[in-house]
Amino acid sequence: MERVRAVVVGASGYTGADLVRLALSHPGLEIVGLAANQKAGQAMNEIWPHFMGVGGLPRLSRVEELDLAHADIVFGCLPHGASAQMLAGISHARIIDLSADFRLKDADVYAEWYGVVHPAPELLDEALYGLSEYAREHLPGARLVACPGCYPTAALLALLPLAEAGLILPEGISINALSGVSGAGRGLKESNLFCEVAEGAAPYAVGRHRHMPEIEQELGRAFGRAVRVGFTPHLVPMNRGELVTASVALAPGASLADLRAALDERYSTEPCVHLLAPGVAPATRMVRGSNLCLLNLFEDRLPGRALVISAIDNLVKGSAGQAIQNMNLMLGWPETLGLEQVPLFP
Amino acid sequence: MERVRAVVVGASGYTGADLVRLALSHPGLEIVGLAANQKAGQAMNEIWPHFMGVGGLPRLSRVEELDLAHADIVFGCLPHGASAQMLAGISHARIIDLSADFRLKDADVYAEWYGVVHPAPELLDEALYGLSEYAREHLPGARLVACPGCYPTAALLALLPLAEAGLILPEGISINALSGVSGAGRGLKESNLFCEVAEGAAPYAVGRHRHMPEIEQELGRAFGRAVRVGFTPHLVPMNRGELVTASVALAPGASLADLRAALDERYSTEPCVHLLAPGVAPATRMVRGSNLCLLNLFEDRLPGRALVISAIDNLVKGSAGQAIQNMNLMLGWPETLGLEQVPLFP
Amino acid sequence: MERVRAVVVGASGYTGADLVRLALSHPGLEIVGLAANQKAGQAMNEIWPHFMGVGGLPRLSRVEELDLAHADIVFGCLPHGASAQMLAGISHARIIDLSADFRLKDADVYAEWYGVVHPAPELLDEALYGLSEYAREHLPGARLVACPGCYPTAALLALLPLAEAGLILPEGISINALSGVSGAGRGLKESNLFCEVAEGAAPYAVGRHRHMPEIEQELGRAFGRAVRVGFTPHLVPMNRGELVTASVALAPGASLADLRAALDERYSTEPCVHLLAPGVAPATRMVRGSNLCLLNLFEDRLPGRALVISAIDNLVKGSAGQAIQNMNLMLGWPETLGLEQVPLFP
Amino acid sequence: MERVRAVVVGASGYTGADLVRLALSHPGLEIVGLAANQKAGQAMNEIWPHFMGVGGLPRLSRVEELDLAHADIVFGCLPHGASAQMLAGISHARIIDLSADFRLKDADVYAEWYGVVHPAPELLDEALYGLSEYAREHLPGARLVACPGCYPTAALLALLPLAEAGLILPEGISINALSGVSGAGRGLKESNLFCEVAEGAAPYAVGRHRHMPEIEQELGRAFGRAVRVGFTPHLVPMNRGELVTASVALAPGASLADLRAALDERYSTEPCVHLLAPGVAPATRMVRGSNLCLLNLFEDRLPGRALVISAIDNLVKGSAGQAIQNMNLMLGWPETLGLEQVPLFP
Repeated sequence: MERVRAVVVGASGYTGADLVRLALSHPGLEIVGLAANQKAGQAMNEIWPHFMGVGGLPRLSRVEELDLAHADIVFGCLPHGASAQMLAGISHARIIDLSADFRLKDADVYAEWYGVVHPAPELLDEALYGLSEYAREHLPGARLVACPGCYPTAALLALLPLAEAGLILPEGISINALSGVSGAGRGLKESNLFCEVAEGAAPYAVGRHRHMPEIEQELGRAFGRAVRVGFTPHLVPMNRGELVTASVALAPGASLADLRAALDERYSTEPCVHLLAPGVAPATRMVRGSNLCLLNLFEDRLPGRALVISAIDNLVKGSAGQAIQNMNLMLGWPETLGLEQVPLFP
Repeated sequence: MERVRAVVVGASGYTGADLVRLALSHPGLEIVGLAANQKAGQAMNEIWPHFMGVGGLPRLSRVEELDLAHADIVFGCLPHGASAQMLAGISHARIIDLSADFRLKDADVYAEWYGVVHPAPELLDEALYGLSEYAREHLPGARLVACPGCYPTAALLALLPLAEAGLILPEGISINALSGVSGAGRGLKESNLFCEVAEGAAPYAVGRHRHMPEIEQELGRAFGRAVRVGFTPHLVPMNRGELVTASVALAPGASLADLRAALDERYSTEPCVHLLAPGVAPATRMVRGSNLCLLNLFEDRLPGRALVISAIDNLVKGSAGQAIQNMNLMLGWPETLGLEQVPLFP
Repeated sequence: MERVRAVVVGASGYTGADLVRLALSHPGLEIVGLAANQKAGQAMNEIWPHFMGVGGLPRLSRVEELDLAHADIVFGCLPHGASAQMLAGISHARIIDLSADFRLKDADVYAEWYGVVHPAPELLDEALYGLSEYAREHLPGARLVACPGCYPTAALLALLPLAEAGLILPEGISINALSGVSGAGRGLKESNLFCEVAEGAAPYAVGRHRHMPEIEQELGRAFGRAVRVGFTPHLVPMNRGELVTASVALAPGASLADLRAALDERYSTEPCVHLLAPGVAPATRMVRGSNLCLLNLFEDRLPGRALVISAIDNLVKGSAGQAIQNMNLMLGWPETLGLEQVPLFP
Repeated sequence: MERVRAVVVGASGYTGADLVRLALSHPGLEIVGLAANQKAGQAMNEIWPHFMGVGGLPRLSRVEELDLAHADIVFGCLPHGASAQMLAGISHARIIDLSADFRLKDADVYAEWYGVVHPAPELLDEALYGLSEYAREHLPGARLVACPGCYPTAALLALLPLAEAGLILPEGISINALSGVSGAGRGLKESNLFCEVAEGAAPYAVGRHRHMPEIEQELGRAFGRAVRVGFTPHLVPMNRGELVTASVALAPGASLADLRAALDERYSTEPCVHLLAPGVAPATRMVRGSNLCLLNLFEDRLPGRALVISAIDNLVKGSAGQAIQNMNLMLGWPETLGLEQVPLFP
């Protein structure tokens, strides 16, 4: 198999590192460049313990020193703002951005939620929102793909089929979510210290998490009109994993069985998304390290409502794995190439 | 201070053990009997590591061998069913039951949710639902007190003032909750094994958790009519702690400021329940090992709704600590006697 | 690639499950049978969360109902005693046993440490001690391979080259070790419950762990005479991982540089065992989920002694991965086929 | 009880915070000042989650703005170097230093291990090494007390009685230790991040940990001659707790029974140090949050050697608790005043 040459910009964060981990098992991918300004000059196994016994990776360089001319694909793993700024200058390579920069279609909404003026608004139209299962047909022709946020991935895979089928109402969608700590990144913040997180659980960014407008944008598209969703994320003491528990109102006449049928039909042939058997609750330990999203549907005790629950690994299906999945689809390769890893348990 | 003589029935579970831990620091309490049939004959520090360096506790006996004649107070920490059966035979001592047996007022509801006929329905009327802050005036005269479940404690402290003031609607109360593993008890179940829980998060008992009817009963009392609540608990990898995130609909005309004022007024003089400053999210690490319940109120992005969040230590305010608090109130002692422990962090 | 047909006896434990996980990524292996008496009749994804999204596995059967006639390889993952008893009846298939039954060459030593008479002492001579890096040349001809224990794997890979080269003394080898909880199995024991393990560290089986005679046997072979080693394992709150810290006495005239050279020479071409750069301490997070063993050497502050430290994933290189590595070597396949997984971090 | 007025310098670290936690339950202690330059101006509950529901603490000030004139006791919780510099200027108050600055008697050894010239070598003679159980008779007259390091506390309590009785040899003392992450402080270091620590175990500072010379100094005093000890600490994923496993050589003629008798005699009347029953392994969960040190003695499989194992909470007996214990002894108060907390489990 001929390998495409890939560059990872921002390889010093958890997302970039997991992308490299997956790339190392991908038969069609050759990592030809790795950049991270603060760690430039170091080997990957100097900054990442899990690459200690792994060879063959290029040394980290500064972003501006990357040889992009010989790259076929650029994976953007920089923080928002920096990502769009850097990627806007790339003309010949295809781009898969894992930052938030090209997810929102409206530069004003971006400015409102991210607090900065969008660095490259002229690219927003071109950017394809890369929720693989919904972007599949557009990916082969895409030059710039924006990978969804981790929470939106889990939430949208659960809700989109129901919204598209008109089985739930756009009003009153209330989402609770749990996330492992890797979702907060490798930055040196007190709130990410072991002792601050272990043996505790806490909501965060209540009412103001940046994944809300993203979920609303895509649900709005499915519903055909603007939507507001409630979304409350919680940090729990684990490395990886994300769990979304959404309470939704059934559309008039819709039954739980209808919802189940819709999810079943939508996902029965999907390789990475599975509806579980009735009564089995999705859990993050079912997907750790894998590109899977597991879903299920439960009766809500509140009349006329249902619960939809989904679990993903935030770094894989919620980020680096979906990026690879998108790349496979862009290149016409088997969708799960390099993503066959069975979850690691315990 | 003259000590009351207390007996703990069911001292081999986490709840019983935490009651003993707290009792050891209580100046008015003398533990004169400890029972647990499966561990009868053993010393407490043979079955509990944290009592290894602690002396002065009686050996465990069988329940039927307890000398109840010399006990002033009996703490019931047996599983539901067994608890009522045992406690029904006690005539002279005051009873504080930590099981579920005397929480529900309706024996039919009990039978429906617990799957067994109530062993002592004749006592249900007499039993006082012991949410300390709401039972305070009735506790001095009570003979039989039913301590609330851990989730109901956290949920009701958050919601009761709002319901009583008519500031929220009884419809559409949707509660998500996170719990540490001690809430599942010390029983030998695969789902409680370290490797099954660590590095994972999972919903459980979705749509059928036994604390739902209890929350509904007490909210119904406050609203003055029957209520249904949605309630989805999740297990997270920590020993202690419980976090409740409730989404509620504002009553017509009510504002977030009204809700804040109601919580503030209700709890400003409470020793164990505190409303946090605006914007500060309650977290379980704020209450670990203590009898505190911390609350806060947030705007919900869903129009006309608000989020109420509360955090407790499930074994303390959610169980053993509230039992001690109730005992103090029953005996006319200072309410927080023996409960002054500052939370343990990290 | 033509697939060999494999059967896993004892697929309801963590070792068996990790073997199945690895087998699913192995291009030359087809799982044709899975047995576990207590779970017979169930699907693997009913008892293992991480197979929830994975298909293609046979249902669990009772051991005696396995169709062994069509199996090329039998992996034994039963507890000791039961394993030898079951495997002794197999004549035509090749056997890779992951239990302790065929590790010790002396049935009396086995009886002394395991407390039972060996069920099949007649097979002890034939059984090959399968520490892959040392059994390599004998594996192609082996019919019955005993995979080493997890601690012995980590300890022997660290110490054998030094013992064989005569660079350390057989006296005074003192080994401390840390293990994740999966090493204790999935049995329903109080000591394996989440709340008993989380937020704690504890030595166990002090002075009487069954891996001691195994380490002594193999080190004795390398030294050419009987050896006694000190060995103290500790349980720490993590799922996977094993770390061995050994203090050894240098042979007269030997220097730390000599020891480093010996380890370097022995392992420089090994695919699964790596000596780290000077000063870098092996850690279990460097090997999680992988078949790697990472080693390093440090000066001991005690004069004339050195520290050798090694890290493995107890379920992979310490068990299921080494079993696959041995199978690859038995069959003349590339040694790391199906074992290329990069460690999962974080 | 008349209260002494105490000031805590360095209240923004885990040690300072745990001192404040304990002080809040101490009937004889009034916190009149709290300093931490980087957090000056903030309330304690703005920087410490567990004080969220706790009132009555002064706001943090800058060190130089502390009103020391009205303090009876100064607790020094600054980092080494800064601590001695600050404390050297105090003349009238009694000082309990929790930093490393006054532990080593030899300024050259200090300079060698801490890499800086000692800021106040003139005070080294006066400083009393405050291992409470051994400093007891000198504490009432002491003005400046240096609290031992956490590892030295656990190691010395285990070894001093054996060294003093001449039952073990000064040669070949090999100590392995495990520590929770709070021992590494609240500083923003990548190695302290949750994701870097959780699900892993690792040795650190191998052969160069700064607690080695401290252990050697005190053991040397007991043996009456210079001693070198091996010491290898490991970081394990828990908040609190420290476990020391020491292998020692028996003196000629000494038996394990002699060692047990010596430990038993030395500690049978101690309130905070207990020798466990034969065969019971000390574990950190037995002491969490308490001022206890639990010890036991085991046969080493290496001939002529024994294992001594001890467990403490690194922040309590290993730091803040011992500081309070020392203060109680300095003031002639009951030794365990304010330290009666039963360990918190689970």
